[in-house]
Amino acid sequence: MSRPTLAVILAAGEGTRMKSSLPKVLHPIAGRPMLTHVLASVREAGVTQAAVVVGPGREDVAKVAQTELPGCAVFTQVERKGTAHAVLAARQALTESKDVIVLFADTPLMRPESIEMLKGALADGASIAVLGFHAADPTGYGRLIVEDGVLTAIVEEKDATSAQKAVGFCNGGLMALSGEHGLALLEAIGNDNAKGEYYLTDAAAIAHQRGLKTVALSIAEEEVQGVNDRAQLAAAEAVMQSRLRAAALREGVTMIAPETVFLSHDTRIGNDVVIEPNCWFGPGVTIESGAVIHAFSHLEGASVGAGTSVGPFARLRPGARLAEEVKVGNFVEVKAASVEKGAKISHLSYIGDARVGAEANIGAGTITCNYDGYLKHRTDIGAGVFVGSNSALVAPVTIGDNANIGAGSVITRDVPADALAVARGRQVAIGGWARTYRARKKEEKAAKGRG
Amino acid sequence: MSRPTLAVILAAGEGTRMKSSLPKVLHPIAGRPMLTHVLASVREAGVTQAAVVVGPGREDVAKVAQTELPGCAVFTQVERKGTAHAVLAARQALTESKDVIVLFADTPLMRPESIEMLKGALADGASIAVLGFHAADPTGYGRLIVEDGVLTAIVEEKDATSAQKAVGFCNGGLMALSGEHGLALLEAIGNDNAKGEYYLTDAAAIAHQRGLKTVALSIAEEEVQGVNDRAQLAAAEAVMQSRLRAAALREGVTMIAPETVFLSHDTRIGNDVVIEPNCWFGPGVTIESGAVIHAFSHLEGASVGAGTSVGPFARLRPGARLAEEVKVGNFVEVKAASVEKGAKISHLSYIGDARVGAEANIGAGTITCNYDGYLKHRTDIGAGVFVGSNSALVAPVTIGDNANIGAGSVITRDVPADALAVARGRQVAIGGWARTYRARKKEEKAAKGRG
Amino acid sequence: MSRPTLAVILAAGEGTRMKSSLPKVLHPIAGRPMLTHVLASVREAGVTQAAVVVGPGREDVAKVAQTELPGCAVFTQVERKGTAHAVLAARQALTESKDVIVLFADTPLMRPESIEMLKGALADGASIAVLGFHAADPTGYGRLIVEDGVLTAIVEEKDATSAQKAVGFCNGGLMALSGEHGLALLEAIGNDNAKGEYYLTDAAAIAHQRGLKTVALSIAEEEVQGVNDRAQLAAAEAVMQSRLRAAALREGVTMIAPETVFLSHDTRIGNDVVIEPNCWFGPGVTIESGAVIHAFSHLEGASVGAGTSVGPFARLRPGARLAEEVKVGNFVEVKAASVEKGAKISHLSYIGDARVGAEANIGAGTITCNYDGYLKHRTDIGAGVFVGSNSALVAPVTIGDNANIGAGSVITRDVPADALAVARGRQVAIGGWARTYRARKKEEKAAKGRG
Repeated sequence: MSRPTLAVILAAGEGTRMKSSLPKVLHPIAGRPMLTHVLASVREAGVTQAAVVVGPGREDVAKVAQTELPGCAVFTQVERKGTAHAVLAARQALTESKDVIVLFADTPLMRPESIEMLKGALADGASIAVLGFHAADPTGYGRLIVEDGVLTAIVEEKDATSAQKAVGFCNGGLMALSGEHGLALLEAIGNDNAKGEYYLTDAAAIAHQRGLKTVALSIAEEEVQGVNDRAQLAAAEAVMQSRLRAAALREGVTMIAPETVFLSHDTRIGNDVVIEPNCWFGPGVTIESGAVIHAFSHLEGASVGAGTSVGPFARLRPGARLAEEVKVGNFVEVKAASVEKGAKISHLSYIGDARVGAEANIGAGTITCNYDGYLKHRTDIGAGVFVGSNSALVAPVTIGDNANIGAGSVITRDVPADALAVARGRQVAIGGWARTYRARKKEEKAAKGRG
Repeated sequence: MSRPTLAVILAAGEGTRMKSSLPKVLHPIAGRPMLTHVLASVREAGVTQAAVVVGPGREDVAKVAQTELPGCAVFTQVERKGTAHAVLAARQALTESKDVIVLFADTPLMRPESIEMLKGALADGASIAVLGFHAADPTGYGRLIVEDGVLTAIVEEKDATSAQKAVGFCNGGLMALSGEHGLALLEAIGNDNAKGEYYLTDAAAIAHQRGLKTVALSIAEEEVQGVNDRAQLAAAEAVMQSRLRAAALREGVTMIAPETVFLSHDTRIGNDVVIEPNCWFGPGVTIESGAVIHAFSHLEGASVGAGTSVGPFARLRPGARLAEEVKVGNFVEVKAASVEKGAKISHLSYIGDARVGAEANIGAGTITCNYDGYLKHRTDIGAGVFVGSNSALVAPVTIGDNANIGAGSVITRDVPADALAVARGRQVAIGGWARTYRARKKEEKAAKGRG
Repeated sequence: MSRPTLAVILAAGEGTRMKSSLPKVLHPIAGRPMLTHVLASVREAGVTQAAVVVGPGREDVAKVAQTELPGCAVFTQVERKGTAHAVLAARQALTESKDVIVLFADTPLMRPESIEMLKGALADGASIAVLGFHAADPTGYGRLIVEDGVLTAIVEEKDATSAQKAVGFCNGGLMALSGEHGLALLEAIGNDNAKGEYYLTDAAAIAHQRGLKTVALSIAEEEVQGVNDRAQLAAAEAVMQSRLRAAALREGVTMIAPETVFLSHDTRIGNDVVIEPNCWFGPGVTIESGAVIHAFSHLEGASVGAGTSVGPFARLRPGARLAEEVKVGNFVEVKAASVEKGAKISHLSYIGDARVGAEANIGAGTITCNYDGYLKHRTDIGAGVFVGSNSALVAPVTIGDNANIGAGSVITRDVPADALAVARGRQVAIGGWARTYRARKKEEKAAKGRG
């Protein structure tokens, strides 16, 4: 049984370099806010209690936190007086019976395994455990000072000796504090420094001076990559996408050019699915084995059955449910519609708020007119129906099984099974008209040219 | 005159890490199976006889091999007892009058020039010639042991001395054996090792011990990159795409972002063609000089004439034949259709199983209704025809030269040259209707909101 | 007050490795010719006089130069006798009262700041100032020979000593010459060399020998990257795109995958705009704060208002002016049309030469038929109009405020405000028809199969 642990997530940073009206920690990566990534890692690491520290008036941040981790406590850091001060904003949630792990909501790449490493260190008797990394370029980072396996202090770069700098073991920011000593250590942190702030990093030296066990664990630099501006946001997105793509490849998904496929945190893809270059998977997509997602497809909140073919140039919006062996072709949009086995919507169509029955064939240019300007209505297309090209189906409307709709029809009333419905004008030809028209138009154009 | 040579292509690997129901060697790269790439290199190197060794029951692999290299022999390796055992599955094709080159169907990046190097080495008197490479990271690879220019053995990494490891000259897998000695060497290979398998690599030491000439030739690591999982498949695809793009750039093609353009092994592109970012060329595409392929275009089995403009967002499917100075614009699909000089299909259309005559103008939203649910029919559009927007041409149908089709028409009967054809309803207006409707609908919506 | 300066831009190179009928210096990068980039940097560096040296018969190059920098002089280099000879083709523009800066039209990445550095060096008393760089791979480049801070010569690699080569300070090509000495130095350059050409680089040694002040300034290698073939053109494009993307990120634009977004030299994007992967911005695009450009969007000459949503799969062509809170959805093309506040064009439409009034709703499949085969006409859609799906609006036509258009209508006459207009056939159903049809068609298909 693991020890009771509270995760304290610091989410109060202003993020001015983002130049955004959206709070920094709500900027999404792989389809969900950075804060949510951190909370998900916390939960996956088996930490069930969390406190999120937000800036004043940030109900939006609080709401996102509580959506991902219902029951998490939210505290407001009214003044900004440093990281230790931010942690103590959650003072009410800190007790001696709980270990504390401090995370930052703007380091969304932290893996659950690393949080577990911190828990393990506390379980092994440490009072303080921190995560460090060996930086490709350590300039600007605080250094973890480790002597004989003991973390003696975390020092800012400007205070580090040449030897300490040379080691290049950098502070990753995350820190775990044992329940027994954590609160005392936090409260012992002073603000006797240039900025007059309370730095969490000071806890390491204090603990060491008190003879407590302090350890530094090493993780990959990538995990502690922080996000302070849009370039760093893009860089974090890139790392997350690499992870998601690698996982899909391992499971037997073919991606011709993985670097051009964008996945969400929750995208689920079966084996032997082939994804051509340049596809976008928003949140909530599931693809079954053997489906093919052709180039330039855009999916969100949709499911794709086994052996189904999507795209190129297809858009599946939330609520699109394609069964097996379906074909959704180019320039087709499907929204809130279930398309049953073997049905085909091959070209230039909009199918929304509808059912398309098994083996139905929807002609090019078919539109379900689901919106009357005020309300949405449903279109029900039976099994085996053949809808001729350029038809408009004005919902609510039902097309019975195996009915035919003549090309170019506007269907406003239900069509019985096995019937043919046509709603269009009769063809009339006027011989020679075009010849006369051409002559007139050429003259008009010439006149305009002269005019 | 070059010596008779037999290529033995080992294609029996199970490829379990691919997690695929498709045999590993049939996974495509640049639009054709890996096996086909290897066979094409064999043929381009001037080797005309080949034997492919497949796993039990792999008629699919055999069929692909014989499609690319008609007349190639196919042998089945029933039990898997190592690479030498696999080569000897083709025992029946091996004779003392033919040199043998052993290749692997899962190393699709091997260039014909490298196969020619092996042939050259045999012609120079070698009994065994192998291809090696200097690995960026040699960990895990067998080492080629070369002393005074003589290949004395191929040793597994665990058996290599530190000095041998340090050299880092790695075994690329490919081996050539002279007709005179090859068969004897293959049969001399034993299975006195941990796995009880027959290793082709043992042939090197045996030949050396017999006083035969043995050489190791160096090639780029890239060429012997093997494919065992989907990540390696994507990596091999990336190398192949880089080669294809570089070749096109050398020939005077502009690619604004070459890394976003995906070519097939047989794509042919003339000089001064401009390709915007994000285009996909499936097999069988030819583009003549001066054409422009705008962003987000998807071509397969299509030809594009000089000065023609395609896309953005265009899809050319097999059988699309665009002449010179044609325009195919956005959200347009063309399939099995010839579009003659100067014709324009600028927006939102589907043209399938059709001819579009010279200088014809196809309005936005035009659909050729080529499919009746059972059979495909042709649409023939004459020169100079003007098809009004949102028209449906129900095939089989012929539109005579210089005819006009009124917007929104459904054309079911032939239209004579120079005629105007219209098939649509007459416009009726009901004054004030919309005002009344709005009032009613707002009420309904409000009621629904309360409901 | 800065000294009078003349920029001499050498644009006469033949560019045979481009394999192009377009002059090399007119090949575009980020939406404008390389030559234009160089001229823009010249102007941004505060240099107001320029002379462009072109090859014989290159009026096209001259025209582009004068478009970007009206009033710039154009000179023709009739014979190709080296870079100094090319500069002297502009002899008529060279006087002792003007400093000269020599630039190459095929190095489009030169920043204005670097030109200013050259000007600064002349102002500090130098007679010759050149830009050098430390090459990642210096092979093939001329070397700047600097002794005690003095540039003594520029030597070709083959003439450089090992020590000079080892320093690897390479000649970037650009040179500034003081008005006082420049002309004399240029005229002192001889052609006593293997090719019998006049090399601008010789000016450095001549000046040094005359006891004049000569300096070499260091810039990033990237800036002097020349373009001689299509691969180098793509490489220069990549650098330019990186700069443009980085600038947008700094200003608070979110790009999920910046490397997939292609910008033009003049793209303007407000903060908190979100750009999904794979978007293309041609010249002349402005996006206001808070707009979202979804994946696979293609914009050129268009403006997008605050909070407006574009795409995925949208194309905005020149003259598309979207106001605030507009929605342009998938498979929609907008050209020369203003779309007013809150209007929606959500799917599969072509809106050209039109106005769409505030809060109007344009149904899926709507086409403005703006072209009669000869002339373009306008469509005016009032505020609050509801256009039913699959409608064709045949221009010139006006739809009054708050009117409704029935789905599938072809509207050829003006519609009054608040009216309903419908123009379509009446729905007719034939019971059992489809059953009979199926039976017959199946037979036909079977017959065809046997035939």
